[in-house]
Amino acid sequence: MKLQLAIDVLTTDEAFALVQETRKYIDIIEIGTPLIKHEGIKLVKSMRTLFPEKTLLVDLKTMDVGEYEANYCFEAGADIVTVLGVADINTIKGTIKSAKKHGKKALVDMINVPNKTALAKKVNKLGADFVGIHSGIDQQNAGQSPLSDLKEVSKNVKIPLAVAGGINLDTIDDIVKLKPEIIVVGGAITGTKDPKKAAKAIAKRIKGK
Amino acid sequence: MKLQLAIDVLTTDEAFALVQETRKYIDIIEIGTPLIKHEGIKLVKSMRTLFPEKTLLVDLKTMDVGEYEANYCFEAGADIVTVLGVADINTIKGTIKSAKKHGKKALVDMINVPNKTALAKKVNKLGADFVGIHSGIDQQNAGQSPLSDLKEVSKNVKIPLAVAGGINLDTIDDIVKLKPEIIVVGGAITGTKDPKKAAKAIAKRIKGK
Repeated sequence: MKLQLAIDVLTTDEAFALVQETRKYIDIIEIGTPLIKHEGIKLVKSMRTLFPEKTLLVDLKTMDVGEYEANYCFEAGADIVTVLGVADINTIKGTIKSAKKHGKKALVDMINVPNKTALAKKVNKLGADFVGIHSGIDQQNAGQSPLSDLKEVSKNVKIPLAVAGGINLDTIDDIVKLKPEIIVVGGAITGTKDPKKAAKAIAKRIKGK
Repeated sequence: MKLQLAIDVLTTDEAFALVQETRKYIDIIEIGTPLIKHEGIKLVKSMRTLFPEKTLLVDLKTMDVGEYEANYCFEAGADIVTVLGVADINTIKGTIKSAKKHGKKALVDMINVPNKTALAKKVNKLGADFVGIHSGIDQQNAGQSPLSDLKEVSKNVKIPLAVAGGINLDTIDDIVKLKPEIIVVGGAITGTKDPKKAAKAIAKRIKGK
């Protein structure tokens, strides 16, 4: 299991500071959707240069032109990009095609997808590398969590899973039991006064050390 | 009816050149989704400064944190931002809330929404300013066009409509007959050797002069 730090601040300097502080404890740097829209592709290049040992995920949440968006993101240094499960199937295929072409990976984000198990099976066959089980922030504020979806999809589909959605020290143990490939944590690290300490505590729950 | 130029090149200089060339004929500058992800919010500020007479739309295609993404975009100078119809209803509400707060406008993009008329009625009640009838590029490549959806939604819902999806000189007359508030043209202008000439011809079909 890997720990992915979801960074949803808006500026490059804040993003750098968060990664620098938590560097020892995280495996995957996620440039969040609001952050990539705010700072642009230049940030992907900088992160690649500054943190070469980390896996770099860009949360493009692509809804159209899957191949076009993924291409420039991989060329800038991303290892994984995301595409929306609610997108047209041809958009998902385009993202996967770009990932294969670059020797990189595609994650299909299940946010707001009605039948997650059915789509997970379908994109698994199409060659997606990960499926993301994801309750959005606007959904968390309305009381949703990703746990039940994670249980259902992990039981029914053999594809590496990433799980995201308000995961914190109170909720992480139930997630860890289901052994997803990637556990995504944002606010429970980035929103604290001491992100380093928070990352250390979260990493310990995931890795037992 | 207004003409919106959808700009899906990837660099600021190419985008500036396209607007400069077509300036006389377009009403709305659209910073496309791949372009905002590539160049970031700085481009919104530059467009605002350089083309103060134009309406500026940023195609955020927001899928989560509706208010958060719209806020920084309006603060940078956007007049209209987009949110995905396939997003959680709370995300759509967040974008609308931000628009009202800034005295600006929210457009709900119907790309890949199963029941467009039902959602258009719903977001109209919630205070959305526009509904976007939109066949994505990956959908156009699979043979789809926005015309039948435009007919159905315009017949059933009283909300200003924007229509997008491969519109060109061959297809625009059927769109114009239905009198949408905004006609979005991308490749039929930006993909030609002479964007100025193409914009002039398209504008003439829309405005009759």
